[in-house]
Amino acid sequence: MRANLTYFFEPESVAVIGASQHKGKIGHELLNNIITYGYQGKIYAVNIKADEIDTILGVKPYKSVKDIPDPVDLALICIPAPSVAEALRECGEKKVKACVIITSGFSETENVKGEQELVEIAHHYSMPFLGPNVFGVIYTPQKLNASFGPTELLPGKIAFITQSGALGISLMDWTIAERIGLSSVVSVGNKADVDDDDVLEFFARDENTEAIALYMEGIKEGRRFMDLVERIVMQKPVIAIKSGRSQKGAKAAASHTGSLAGSDAVFDSVFKQIGILRAKSTREAFDWARIFSLEKPKGDNVVIITNGGGAGVMATDEAEEKEVHLLDDYTYLKEVFEKCVPPFGSTRNPIDLTGQTGEIGYKIALETALREEKIHAIVIIYCEAPLTDPLLVAQYIIEVTGKNEFRKPVIAAFIGGSRSEIGINMLNEKGIPSYPEPERAVDALGAFYRWVHFIDREKEEERPGALPLGEENKKRIYEIIGTARKEQRLQLLENEAEEILRLAGFAVPSSRIGSSISECVKAAEEIGYPVVMKIVSEDIIHKSDVGGVRVNVQSTEEVKEIYEDIMTKARKRYPEANLRGILVCEMVEKGVETILGMSSDPQFGPVIMFGLGGIYVEVLKDVSFRVAPLSRRDAEEMIHEIKTAPLLYGVRGGARKDIEVLQENLYRLGLLVTEIPEIAEMDVNPLVVLDKGKGCKVLDARMTLHPEERRP
Amino acid sequence: MRANLTYFFEPESVAVIGASQHKGKIGHELLNNIITYGYQGKIYAVNIKADEIDTILGVKPYKSVKDIPDPVDLALICIPAPSVAEALRECGEKKVKACVIITSGFSETENVKGEQELVEIAHHYSMPFLGPNVFGVIYTPQKLNASFGPTELLPGKIAFITQSGALGISLMDWTIAERIGLSSVVSVGNKADVDDDDVLEFFARDENTEAIALYMEGIKEGRRFMDLVERIVMQKPVIAIKSGRSQKGAKAAASHTGSLAGSDAVFDSVFKQIGILRAKSTREAFDWARIFSLEKPKGDNVVIITNGGGAGVMATDEAEEKEVHLLDDYTYLKEVFEKCVPPFGSTRNPIDLTGQTGEIGYKIALETALREEKIHAIVIIYCEAPLTDPLLVAQYIIEVTGKNEFRKPVIAAFIGGSRSEIGINMLNEKGIPSYPEPERAVDALGAFYRWVHFIDREKEEERPGALPLGEENKKRIYEIIGTARKEQRLQLLENEAEEILRLAGFAVPSSRIGSSISECVKAAEEIGYPVVMKIVSEDIIHKSDVGGVRVNVQSTEEVKEIYEDIMTKARKRYPEANLRGILVCEMVEKGVETILGMSSDPQFGPVIMFGLGGIYVEVLKDVSFRVAPLSRRDAEEMIHEIKTAPLLYGVRGGARKDIEVLQENLYRLGLLVTEIPEIAEMDVNPLVVLDKGKGCKVLDARMTLHPEERRP
Repeated sequence: MRANLTYFFEPESVAVIGASQHKGKIGHELLNNIITYGYQGKIYAVNIKADEIDTILGVKPYKSVKDIPDPVDLALICIPAPSVAEALRECGEKKVKACVIITSGFSETENVKGEQELVEIAHHYSMPFLGPNVFGVIYTPQKLNASFGPTELLPGKIAFITQSGALGISLMDWTIAERIGLSSVVSVGNKADVDDDDVLEFFARDENTEAIALYMEGIKEGRRFMDLVERIVMQKPVIAIKSGRSQKGAKAAASHTGSLAGSDAVFDSVFKQIGILRAKSTREAFDWARIFSLEKPKGDNVVIITNGGGAGVMATDEAEEKEVHLLDDYTYLKEVFEKCVPPFGSTRNPIDLTGQTGEIGYKIALETALREEKIHAIVIIYCEAPLTDPLLVAQYIIEVTGKNEFRKPVIAAFIGGSRSEIGINMLNEKGIPSYPEPERAVDALGAFYRWVHFIDREKEEERPGALPLGEENKKRIYEIIGTARKEQRLQLLENEAEEILRLAGFAVPSSRIGSSISECVKAAEEIGYPVVMKIVSEDIIHKSDVGGVRVNVQSTEEVKEIYEDIMTKARKRYPEANLRGILVCEMVEKGVETILGMSSDPQFGPVIMFGLGGIYVEVLKDVSFRVAPLSRRDAEEMIHEIKTAPLLYGVRGGARKDIEVLQENLYRLGLLVTEIPEIAEMDVNPLVVLDKGKGCKVLDARMTLHPEERRP
Repeated sequence: MRANLTYFFEPESVAVIGASQHKGKIGHELLNNIITYGYQGKIYAVNIKADEIDTILGVKPYKSVKDIPDPVDLALICIPAPSVAEALRECGEKKVKACVIITSGFSETENVKGEQELVEIAHHYSMPFLGPNVFGVIYTPQKLNASFGPTELLPGKIAFITQSGALGISLMDWTIAERIGLSSVVSVGNKADVDDDDVLEFFARDENTEAIALYMEGIKEGRRFMDLVERIVMQKPVIAIKSGRSQKGAKAAASHTGSLAGSDAVFDSVFKQIGILRAKSTREAFDWARIFSLEKPKGDNVVIITNGGGAGVMATDEAEEKEVHLLDDYTYLKEVFEKCVPPFGSTRNPIDLTGQTGEIGYKIALETALREEKIHAIVIIYCEAPLTDPLLVAQYIIEVTGKNEFRKPVIAAFIGGSRSEIGINMLNEKGIPSYPEPERAVDALGAFYRWVHFIDREKEEERPGALPLGEENKKRIYEIIGTARKEQRLQLLENEAEEILRLAGFAVPSSRIGSSISECVKAAEEIGYPVVMKIVSEDIIHKSDVGGVRVNVQSTEEVKEIYEDIMTKARKRYPEANLRGILVCEMVEKGVETILGMSSDPQFGPVIMFGLGGIYVEVLKDVSFRVAPLSRRDAEEMIHEIKTAPLLYGVRGGARKDIEVLQENLYRLGLLVTEIPEIAEMDVNPLVVLDKGKGCKVLDARMTLHPEERRP
């Protein structure tokens, strides 16, 4: 954590610089919100015309923050952009602990210089600031609403960080209407100084926050964000709404924030990798956030209790889609729920109490489910019916869940009109997450389980152990890179790339370069027939296209003949090319061809890609990504995540492939590119995965270096 | 249409049989709803204890429906199940025009016989009935609320048909809370007599209904449903919520309605084929239904106007996902919207007016967009902000759209709290579909475009022309089938299957059966080398597994040798098998291997499947379905729908394949299985698709007949 953010959230005094008497002005709304929401610390107003003004909203104004006789912890600046720097400087001189610069008109309108000036002033005084171009900060435990948003915000346990101002304010209004409580709202705006990461770090340690929701459009330091969130997620769920999923959306995001929206596939992988729950909409994010105040379920068995078969079926569909496990031991369920269900109902989970059930039917069924140790979480679905009162159903749920000594998650969905809405609000206010649609309840439970499972797996995960390279190997790799640099090549030669991979622990079939017929014959005899012959030249990248690759070469005669042929054709096609000779390699058995790739993401650095060779990558785009370095579990997930993974499991009578070695190779690739940041791009294509026990073989590899001036 | 349903919706008199004085009884609620909702026709009450009762809710009761002195158009029966048959008979004698049997306790509780009795009575009197086990019928144009649901239902243009009672009632409550107007609600219950199809047919012709929403769990007569809906969709959109998507969901559906839930993939294809819009949830269905009261857009160019960049990005993401085309001529957009947008806003669609825009900013931007002929539909997104009033924004939208001489769709999303909610309601009440989330607005617009595009395409579609078989060919096919029947085989021999395909217009490589070495040699010489040799035996299905297939046979010597070899191995492995000889076939060039399959769905009859051969079908399950017969467009869509379709377009330097002939083959397969209903299952695997201009070749085919007793 770079800055102490405590003073943003728990200041003992707040000054509004630019406080105004005029309703509708931001400086008025800000001061009014602070007062109205019940802030208990000292409140000061600063207005340049303080001499002419008696009081502003009952607060005596000062001409400058420096005139305030007592210390100021937090200053909110909402004066026109050209005056902000001066005001910030005065805050520095006054030893203000933290500033929020509400004013817009800086980097978002291409006034980058103006923003830079603010940063320099703040650094000079070691005074952190939020903004510019924000709507403020809210922290409900301190009754601090230093924003120009709504004032009726409900206290709760969810912290909300937003990169979008307009969206953030409108969502505050929405949480009020939906009865969702918040611990905090922070608008991060241009992030000139304090950014999402700092704020995240604060909430990670904040006892008043149980879940963090994050609206983001882009990120600046990807790896730092990952390291930070990976730690936080083990304590508290982090839910992200990352917009700019689509190509056009990404463009829209770029045009409006100036922050680079990375490739969405990479973001998606990053979120999986560090356990962020990615919501598709803000509504979904808050649906999820609400559920984390519940006890963690002790197992995966979920039971749905409903009075409407149709609603039960819809919940079941959603459960299957979101991988929520519905308990399906029907004998057991029948035994347990038989007495709760009329003869034409169903105990086959959903437990269908039928439309004829009364309020008491829900009570009995819920009590029954809570008592059963084998049941770990319960979803109650109620369809409003004229003869069953939603308020009474809600009351029973509250009553029964209140004395729930087993402490297991109970969530609800009430489908109906305004009375159902009241029932939902009653439940939400008692901490029982409730929704107007069964799908939303099940979807939220699905997110809960994803987080719980992530933590469980992460705990088992061993930390990356000793790096695979060792000083000796690393030195050799730098020698190879040095040669390329000396020759002003960014593209490594195939044999160079293969040597690096071998040093990193990959199996590369043995090979020799021969620069004459006799050298090639000697090489082939040492390696043993059959062999493969490939031309070596940094000037010819797609070797197959010029007939520069020949497989299954069986004899000395063939070696001689093919040597001549390759060289003749290459010289003819690329008269300028530097032909270094012919690589003679061991011929490898058939297996499944895979591609291991690596590229440099502007935000996250080295990203590893995995997919199956040929059309699977090219046509089906069936690939997975992770940011390097990978844990062994990341490597495992990358393999099983692609749709064509079953081809590695052994289909149509084929043998199971050596997935263990493939996983190890992916893991090692992650370490290699992390240890050798000079590598900018890489394709191991194909890496042939042989039958189980036989390992994987690198058949071809390409590696490109970062230009020296852009070396990370 | 089997029955005249007018009397269910527009009766001149209604009788409640089982009317009750006691609040909370269904017979009381029903009568009360009819009176309260303002029905203008005559209302009668029937109660067995009429002698002892003065009036029920102010209505004089009769002991039997037969005692009513005037004619009765519609009778609602809500007395205990054992008395229903008698009451129904009395209705018949009274010449009641239509009955709704509310009472439950029939086929849904396995009282199938009781239900059958009701059907017989109704048929005897030619009197249609709805139910049993329903909550009633509502038709708002007549102010008829003959249900025990809520009474505050809003009039509108959406008809809602539901198979689930509890869900239906609770959704009625929900539409009231959400200010959604309905023309009708019908609970179809057990569908003993009148079913969804009849009701659909009524709404198709109903002038008061503009969109039809359908909650369904299964279907009885699939093909009839398809024919009907295909016609309706050209006039009015039909939106279906088909639950039981998941395997577990399908089980839950089966256990609660008794109707068979078909394979969900087939349902999905059917919906595409006939233009039904499939919603994932009831909420989504009504989100969509609301939009169809708008004029159809005259083109695909959509513009989004927003005050929140973040909300704009989210809408853009959704637009890309739902294939809503955002106008992207940025030069044009800049020209048009420059004057509406502040310098740090954006005209790059979303048109970002920025958070600083006032209400009037929306007015000007919307007016501008409406005036532009190149813009065909507009989405307005408003993020609630303290300085911009949602009510005023809504008012401006209403005002500007009201005098919209271009008549183009305008929809809105207001993100915010209770004031935004009021804004949304204002807009919805004026017929401007409005939502609390930008994604929902765009999603609805996407559904609108899907419908519009379906209609456009369907209009271009030529009706299936003359059938391909002809009497001569059909006779020959029945001869082949006759032979199999005589030999008590359901499985046709390969040559039989291939002959049928040839008669249906498929290209099957020439081949001859030889039952001796000399016959095979003669056949090979006639066909020309190289040839393929395959064993012929109804007892050996997987011929490759016993070495019964040999390709690339080059000479007379090889034919002789291979003949001996195949026969010896087959005899050894299947000593009991009837070996009919060896099929000698033309050898086919390499191409893309595809699978054309057909199976019999219990609800929809013959279903055609298409996919690419090998692992694409087996591992990736990358297949498409349509119900036979197919239109040429269905065939085209089947091909392009699969993810691996690009392999047919020519990838990695390969030539484009003969997609036209492939399409023709699919189309012909659809006609074949429709004309010859004896065929139960078929696999044309592989059908090799050669380069464009060279057609497709059947390499192998299997066909199975329906057992004679289960022939359709």
